[in-house]
Amino acid sequence: MKKYFVRFSRMLVLYCSMAATSQAQNASTSLCDYVDPFIGTQEMGHTFPGATVPFGMVQLSPETDTIPYSVNGRYNGEVYRYCAGYQYTDPTIVGFAHTHFSGTGHSDLGDFLIMPTTGKLQLNPGTTEHPETGYRSRFSHEQESASPGYYKVLLEDDNITAELTTTTHTGLHQYTFPKTDVGHIILDMNYNIYNYDGKVIWASVRVENDTLVTGYRITRGWARNRYLYFAMSFSKPIKEYGMKSNEKLVYKGFWRKFDETKNFPQMEAKEMVNYFDFDVADGQPVKIKFALSAVSTEGARKNLEAEIPHWDFEKTKTEARNLWEKELEKVKIKAGHEKMVAFYTSLYHAFINPITYNDVDGKYRGLDQNIYEADGFTNYTVFSLWDTYRALHPLFTVLQPKRANDMVKSMIKHYEQSVHHLLPVWSHFNNENWCMIGYHAVPVMVDAYLKGIRDYDIDKAFEAVIKSSTHNSYDGIGEYMKYGYAPFDNVNNSASLTLEYAYDDWTIAKMAQSLGKKEEAAAYLKRAQYYKNLFDPEVGFIRAKLSTGEWKKPFNALKTTGEGYIEGNAWNYSFYVPQDVAGYMQLLGGEKKFISRLDSLFEMHLPDEFFEESEDIDRVGIIGGYVQGNEPSHHVPYLYAWTSSPWKTAEKIHQIINTKYNPKPDGLCGNDDCGQMSAWYIFSSMGFYPVCPGTNEYVIGSPCVNEATIDVGEGKTFTMKANSLTDKNIYIQSVTLNGKPWHKTYITHEDVMNGGELIFNMAGKPNKKWGTGKESKPYSIATNEN
Amino acid sequence: MKKYFVRFSRMLVLYCSMAATSQAQNASTSLCDYVDPFIGTQEMGHTFPGATVPFGMVQLSPETDTIPYSVNGRYNGEVYRYCAGYQYTDPTIVGFAHTHFSGTGHSDLGDFLIMPTTGKLQLNPGTTEHPETGYRSRFSHEQESASPGYYKVLLEDDNITAELTTTTHTGLHQYTFPKTDVGHIILDMNYNIYNYDGKVIWASVRVENDTLVTGYRITRGWARNRYLYFAMSFSKPIKEYGMKSNEKLVYKGFWRKFDETKNFPQMEAKEMVNYFDFDVADGQPVKIKFALSAVSTEGARKNLEAEIPHWDFEKTKTEARNLWEKELEKVKIKAGHEKMVAFYTSLYHAFINPITYNDVDGKYRGLDQNIYEADGFTNYTVFSLWDTYRALHPLFTVLQPKRANDMVKSMIKHYEQSVHHLLPVWSHFNNENWCMIGYHAVPVMVDAYLKGIRDYDIDKAFEAVIKSSTHNSYDGIGEYMKYGYAPFDNVNNSASLTLEYAYDDWTIAKMAQSLGKKEEAAAYLKRAQYYKNLFDPEVGFIRAKLSTGEWKKPFNALKTTGEGYIEGNAWNYSFYVPQDVAGYMQLLGGEKKFISRLDSLFEMHLPDEFFEESEDIDRVGIIGGYVQGNEPSHHVPYLYAWTSSPWKTAEKIHQIINTKYNPKPDGLCGNDDCGQMSAWYIFSSMGFYPVCPGTNEYVIGSPCVNEATIDVGEGKTFTMKANSLTDKNIYIQSVTLNGKPWHKTYITHEDVMNGGELIFNMAGKPNKKWGTGKESKPYSIATNEN
Repeated sequence: MKKYFVRFSRMLVLYCSMAATSQAQNASTSLCDYVDPFIGTQEMGHTFPGATVPFGMVQLSPETDTIPYSVNGRYNGEVYRYCAGYQYTDPTIVGFAHTHFSGTGHSDLGDFLIMPTTGKLQLNPGTTEHPETGYRSRFSHEQESASPGYYKVLLEDDNITAELTTTTHTGLHQYTFPKTDVGHIILDMNYNIYNYDGKVIWASVRVENDTLVTGYRITRGWARNRYLYFAMSFSKPIKEYGMKSNEKLVYKGFWRKFDETKNFPQMEAKEMVNYFDFDVADGQPVKIKFALSAVSTEGARKNLEAEIPHWDFEKTKTEARNLWEKELEKVKIKAGHEKMVAFYTSLYHAFINPITYNDVDGKYRGLDQNIYEADGFTNYTVFSLWDTYRALHPLFTVLQPKRANDMVKSMIKHYEQSVHHLLPVWSHFNNENWCMIGYHAVPVMVDAYLKGIRDYDIDKAFEAVIKSSTHNSYDGIGEYMKYGYAPFDNVNNSASLTLEYAYDDWTIAKMAQSLGKKEEAAAYLKRAQYYKNLFDPEVGFIRAKLSTGEWKKPFNALKTTGEGYIEGNAWNYSFYVPQDVAGYMQLLGGEKKFISRLDSLFEMHLPDEFFEESEDIDRVGIIGGYVQGNEPSHHVPYLYAWTSSPWKTAEKIHQIINTKYNPKPDGLCGNDDCGQMSAWYIFSSMGFYPVCPGTNEYVIGSPCVNEATIDVGEGKTFTMKANSLTDKNIYIQSVTLNGKPWHKTYITHEDVMNGGELIFNMAGKPNKKWGTGKESKPYSIATNEN
Repeated sequence: MKKYFVRFSRMLVLYCSMAATSQAQNASTSLCDYVDPFIGTQEMGHTFPGATVPFGMVQLSPETDTIPYSVNGRYNGEVYRYCAGYQYTDPTIVGFAHTHFSGTGHSDLGDFLIMPTTGKLQLNPGTTEHPETGYRSRFSHEQESASPGYYKVLLEDDNITAELTTTTHTGLHQYTFPKTDVGHIILDMNYNIYNYDGKVIWASVRVENDTLVTGYRITRGWARNRYLYFAMSFSKPIKEYGMKSNEKLVYKGFWRKFDETKNFPQMEAKEMVNYFDFDVADGQPVKIKFALSAVSTEGARKNLEAEIPHWDFEKTKTEARNLWEKELEKVKIKAGHEKMVAFYTSLYHAFINPITYNDVDGKYRGLDQNIYEADGFTNYTVFSLWDTYRALHPLFTVLQPKRANDMVKSMIKHYEQSVHHLLPVWSHFNNENWCMIGYHAVPVMVDAYLKGIRDYDIDKAFEAVIKSSTHNSYDGIGEYMKYGYAPFDNVNNSASLTLEYAYDDWTIAKMAQSLGKKEEAAAYLKRAQYYKNLFDPEVGFIRAKLSTGEWKKPFNALKTTGEGYIEGNAWNYSFYVPQDVAGYMQLLGGEKKFISRLDSLFEMHLPDEFFEESEDIDRVGIIGGYVQGNEPSHHVPYLYAWTSSPWKTAEKIHQIINTKYNPKPDGLCGNDDCGQMSAWYIFSSMGFYPVCPGTNEYVIGSPCVNEATIDVGEGKTFTMKANSLTDKNIYIQSVTLNGKPWHKTYITHEDVMNGGELIFNMAGKPNKKWGTGKESKPYSIATNEN
């Protein structure tokens, strides 16, 4: 990826070419070569192409526009496309910012935009149509490349080559200027993702000496009160510097004493764009180390000094790549090239969020804005839990058990610091943004606990899950407890809430059982079945109910709004009973009805009106009425495993894998959601999926790669082989685990973590008898609990 | 002061009565009884009447209005009267805030306004005319009292008795409600002194539990970026709470999940007024411990818990008074009652600023916003140095040597944290506001150093004074060094600057001499005489000069604006050569001219136009053309000591003492300026004054109290006795020091600190021979240096 490619006229052709080149260059040596950071950067994926290290605090990536949150006082839908700052089809780059979510459906961040320019100093970004009116520049994908931990682009307007790499807390920029005297480095302190007037409540920049600048800003956005500090070190001395601001100082005590228009080292304002000029006549690039801290500029300086004590760009770039290689090597697969790219890019996307949220000295800013020290653990933030409790966190229990443990610790700390005494819902940077529903930190914690990840205060963990599930005034919990369901007339998303709370509650019952807390176990096992209170046998769906006990009328099983669901409808959400699939099947009227309902979901045709009213769902992401592009039904294809037709899962999985995860910029069928979409891909390709975190079971689907070897630690490996797998041979004929025939439609976490070999023998037609025995079925409350 | 007084119709009568009552009650036991915190609270004094402990971080005091900084976009002169939040003639109290400067001429602070109310909840302050339209209340001085560490008032509108006391970091409120059900406590997070729209850039309040609230706000005012945190603990559980705000949240993720209109524990906004309701039917008062920290809410909680681990209001009140008593006992005087009141109130006012600026655990927020730990010293802030280097800091070298040492340390830390590498000019709360001129931290540090106060890094101190005096781009220093004066055409206040820099430079020369740094000593001794470059023999005044070497034309010796002076004119400023009075006298044309000029200054009549154009000077503060109400000429009455007529000082001193320091609310003739005016009074009443800090000399004036015994530490005392002193016997006949005749017009710091007895024999006519010998004269460059 180190040299530019010949110009092709069509993007797609270029794309194939890039991937092919990668493979050719590094063939057997590097899994990083299979990672294509551009996947998901077009349309709905909301991933970013820039540089980051696994779970790093810095995501240093290009921004391709400055889309305002509102235009003429009205919400601007366009802002949604820029959740990660970059849209692949855009023609210009505004600059490079240091923080980005990966794949989210709402956003924030975009902190500390840096842009190099030459010629006339321009301190406004300019427009897409006329980039020459500002500091932004045209670029083309022919002169752009990205790989794990590295991003490079030619900024065409000023002919500047920009290269980016990172460590955990520090971005390293390298800007190679054309032959000229002065190079400008713009620092736009007012650039934001999801930008609106007044989002920056204060920005400060201090020029400490001729190569070191520190600063910070406080923003009120999705995070209501977010502090981020930086330390920025230049490889060359600053010649001159200054700022542009519309700040009207009320008290100007200093202005008659200094020339503050230029080279005044204390620049502060609400809105501010700074510049730093460098002598570039020597042809040497301007390099910038840019470290972040949520604690202080002192913290950022420590991070900077600890992580990059040199100016060797190649060294940091290689270290970043090596970190990724080490993480990617945790799963070694054999598959065709496209699947290799899709798989390792998924693994890459799965290991970006959550991010490290403490400085090298352990300090971090807590939810109460006080400074804490993470003693003996890494503190993480960016918990998109409604998405990630499903498969991403379970994936961590296999591939990242130490981090999974520290994420539990981080959640307990969040709970302790929360004035609401709640575990995180959707949290980032010492803020709770309350996005989406449920108390899904609970299943994450319980799943980790039940899988033996327990290096934290277990009593405190149990206290936190109990408190979070009994908070009377939070999002209908009080009414849910009172009525046995969240009533539609009083609570938003009441049906979805009831289903998700019931599942979360079931995990609490399991933890209580494990701790010998019989009373709590019984109470939560009861709550785990509250889903039954919303099952309407008349219509055969989960349906919103009023506080009077009457059903909400009218009822429309297709509608995603106004029916008590969030980002889903009755068709999808009615399958959301992972803790009691068998019980729900009975309720519905037996297996036949259940299978028929599943089949219909995948086969139905949705009318156009459906997409007009539905949030976060579009045609790209669906199969029939099944939505892969959003989370609520990610487990649904696996539900056949509870029936006498487990073979039906295979078709669905292969169809999804082959049509919803194209290794192209626009290849993701929905938001990657901090890696949840990717985690689904990773598990599903290997042939099994955590349908119900909190059990130790991975439900068998149908493998899509020929072989996968998982490093499960302590020198052990777990290998999946799919003998005879082809595009047509997608059906399981037989299975062996460690050489013995295997008839269950699931394997356990222990099976995986003990190491061993899972062999699937595949064929073009299903073995309709495999996995159909009564004892073969995964966990359900109805069949497993007294 | 514990019971209310009978209502008198005239304020003044009431006033005398209050003081008399105080004396009668505690006669010989308590010096605190002589302190009247109301002195200076009317018109120009800008002191506050509320509770504080010596050098405490909390000044808990009533606010009597909400004056905006600007009205219809124009500066509102009225705001100036409210520098300390309180004006004695106002009829209403808005509430009680926790931070106030003492006596300043610009302002800020007023943090965290608390107000108790009953009945209808009103979250706006209301107006002076119609206090019933808001939470403010009428009050009268008959139902108000104040003494060191204690303030009490009856809030008439709701019949609530408010009592306030403090520790170093914590205010303790006690509100006694009338018979009613619910008492409201209002917390107005948007109240400010020097208030303008947008001054609060963020405010946050967290209800941690039913008795503990934490929070903070960030303001941009005189301090450009000031952070202040609090922890507030109630003696009763909160029944209900809420907020009023005009904040328009862009993202409202939480609002469909909580009822955030009431009892939502995380309240954040730019502008916010909070309330907390209490059950007061039991007749028990609502008490509030309110601790501050510049570091964090955690720091505030620690301060609160360490300082007031109980709910005993009387205990804290007594402890506060005892702290004051201990400080006041450092000087025991004998004098008539009015002078006792004036003296001890001056001592009280001298020991309020600077304030302690670190938490009980030593942590404080530095000038770079990073958190530091004061190891083994108290970190101080609120340095109004243009005022206080003259007499207040010298007073500290005598009465507060440990604090004087720690103030030097604090200044060195400021220098180390300053991005400009400058010592403080006018600094408060980790901010430099750059108010007024000079680098007068330098004489403060050098004076302390030369007086043997040296428990800090002396090399670093010397580095700091050198760097601060050679900062090329700060306030004309570069040009001053280049031309030997600050040129009028390029630099504001060029004549004042030149004079004050020259004096400051002289102190550096003295420190360099002491350190054996001959080169620096010689260089700064040269700079110390740059004042000569601005002496125009034609007009006989110091006069602004252009960079061309020509005098600024036209010249008006009376004008205070447009002539190169700041808050002064040529008449006053031309005497500002404390380091070389003899040299200046020669320049002027000899002693006769000098005395005549001094006499004229005190005898001239200033036209009305003078006061119209002059900042911070009014008729109340002047004698002839001499200005006691502002600082530049505070040393001038003592300059006769360098002449053959030292006796002339006596008349001036007694006239100033008797007419410019009336022990009444409107008795101060100008801003107390953090205690500088008071320090002048303290020194001058005892008969000597530090005309030229940096020498060890106190120039003898004429004592105004009969006796003063100073506790100089280590069990030693220095006693001044003024035998035969009466209103008429103001002239020195003879002096003895430790029993030996004393002919010098000064005594030394060592004379004082070694302990001993200085006896003045006073008479109604001057002994014109005393102190006239050549060897009697205080230091001047011209006579003391080679």
